[in-house]
Amino acid sequence: MGMRSKEIRLKSRPIGTPAAKDFELAEITLPDPGAGEALVKNLWMSVDPYMRGRMYDRASYVPPFQIGEALQGGAVGEVVASNDPALKPGDLVQSMFGWREGFVAPAASLQKLPSGNAPPQAYLGVLGMPGMTAYSGFLRLGEPKPGEVVFVSGAAGAVGSVVCQIAKIKGCEVVASVGADDKAAWLKGRGVDHVVNYKTCGDLLTAVRAAAPKGIDIYFDNVGGEHLEVALELARPFGRFVECGMISQYNNTEPTPGPRNIIYVVGKSLRIQGFIVTNFMDMQQQFFADMSQWIAEGRIAWEETVEHGIENAPTAFLKLFSGGNTGKMLVKLG
Amino acid sequence: MGMRSKEIRLKSRPIGTPAAKDFELAEITLPDPGAGEALVKNLWMSVDPYMRGRMYDRASYVPPFQIGEALQGGAVGEVVASNDPALKPGDLVQSMFGWREGFVAPAASLQKLPSGNAPPQAYLGVLGMPGMTAYSGFLRLGEPKPGEVVFVSGAAGAVGSVVCQIAKIKGCEVVASVGADDKAAWLKGRGVDHVVNYKTCGDLLTAVRAAAPKGIDIYFDNVGGEHLEVALELARPFGRFVECGMISQYNNTEPTPGPRNIIYVVGKSLRIQGFIVTNFMDMQQQFFADMSQWIAEGRIAWEETVEHGIENAPTAFLKLFSGGNTGKMLVKLG
Repeated sequence: MGMRSKEIRLKSRPIGTPAAKDFELAEITLPDPGAGEALVKNLWMSVDPYMRGRMYDRASYVPPFQIGEALQGGAVGEVVASNDPALKPGDLVQSMFGWREGFVAPAASLQKLPSGNAPPQAYLGVLGMPGMTAYSGFLRLGEPKPGEVVFVSGAAGAVGSVVCQIAKIKGCEVVASVGADDKAAWLKGRGVDHVVNYKTCGDLLTAVRAAAPKGIDIYFDNVGGEHLEVALELARPFGRFVECGMISQYNNTEPTPGPRNIIYVVGKSLRIQGFIVTNFMDMQQQFFADMSQWIAEGRIAWEETVEHGIENAPTAFLKLFSGGNTGKMLVKLG
Repeated sequence: MGMRSKEIRLKSRPIGTPAAKDFELAEITLPDPGAGEALVKNLWMSVDPYMRGRMYDRASYVPPFQIGEALQGGAVGEVVASNDPALKPGDLVQSMFGWREGFVAPAASLQKLPSGNAPPQAYLGVLGMPGMTAYSGFLRLGEPKPGEVVFVSGAAGAVGSVVCQIAKIKGCEVVASVGADDKAAWLKGRGVDHVVNYKTCGDLLTAVRAAAPKGIDIYFDNVGGEHLEVALELARPFGRFVECGMISQYNNTEPTPGPRNIIYVVGKSLRIQGFIVTNFMDMQQQFFADMSQWIAEGRIAWEETVEHGIENAPTAFLKLFSGGNTGKMLVKLG
């Protein structure tokens, strides 16, 4: 008799902001691992803003989630049984089989985690996809130079908080936007020069201009909308816009007007470039080397916000859109 | 007694679309050229869309025009008298002293035109700033590869018509947008694959999609507004947007909404990059070499729309915003 595993399935495609009713909990019995397969018990799973896009029924860079099927996403777990020589019970592995307590999969689809000092869930955060997103996007597209002014929106999130710290390591002046005072305090403690709470600052343009009176050279965008418009207004000539995400728009049910000042892209010779992390896989080895060193030196730190149990995974996901997380949003399983 | 010269001055800063009342004709007596100076009689002057920006009283990449002073812009003329050994009467020179019949200026501020087969006014068009804008922006930022699909707006203008032809030389498939059927016919005669008349095509997105069912790889933007939104909709992953101008917005009196689908920049990994021609002066020698060869081979042709006499220079300028020009808009003087 195989292991029982609870999982979260997509019950309906969200219209606007996702709600609990769009998800359902189910339980299945896992098969025994066949040849070349392993049985894994998940310890942690990740929820990330990009998953919202996969809930729409449309072509994109990743295929849409299917109604009635378990969702997918990053997870780290422990091998319980293995029918492949590459893995043995007790090994820690990373996979895309999140949103479930356990699974059976080909060993070749699992990435064995290096033994080191980092806790396993760091491979879903600073040492994982969000960290790599921050590192590759900021360095490859932002092209930071010492003394430049960097504006980061969504700055307390899993990606933004790493961008802020890498920008400081690279000698930049950092202006961060967040939606809560405790997030601001954490970033100030990490050396960020100016933090604006966009929910309480009044006019956002006025507040960011006060923090960056010389203008900004790099804008790392996690938010879109008004933040993007403010960045266009304050951009200096040859500014670089790293378009990582636009979470303010993910739940829109109608198209919303774009930045009214997009024309600045011409006169200021701006570059606005979008990316997804897989564009820059050539940087992965350098990412691991740099990030491991920076963590060891105490130059990169991180926060985690944790929900417990598979049944609370939808709650964790929904918190991404209400600002309910500081740093990496995680679900602890098992 | 010096030469008399009529000139066009900015009388008032236009609000919305410029009108004849914003300009005034004046006549002055030119001084005799001092040491190191030359007296030049202009033969041709250029009007260009970017000049609209200089009529606003705001900081930009070129300083604003001043009320009551002669406007400036590209011109080619003939040296009448010279007090500098570098120039002699009869030499043809290019300058930024347009909008006037003649002028006295330091010889060092004048560029002697090469003797060749090209008519002098070509140095205000295909062999001048608009040609260089098309060449440098398309090649440096567009990075065209054979077989790629290029969408060009404002495609019958001085810049757009050169972009279309270079794109064909580089082996691309070209979809052009224009506002008149005679412009469409001219471009078809130059080998452009598909031409959309945006004024008569009905829904622009539908029309461009029909012309480019595979999507577009490069968008060369002279227009902004709805054209930019259509390009975002049809862009393929890793598409490049060369932001040369947004003439549809130059006369707006209120900020207008930007593209409602700007979020595609993230998921499609698009690059939207603005520029001004002076960013790429390192390409100028190669530009002259390539363009001269392409003209000699008949691979680049051009149209001119000509107004006559300095008093009609404002009329020529205003026609840029009503689609009254095919190819380079020029004013013939003297």
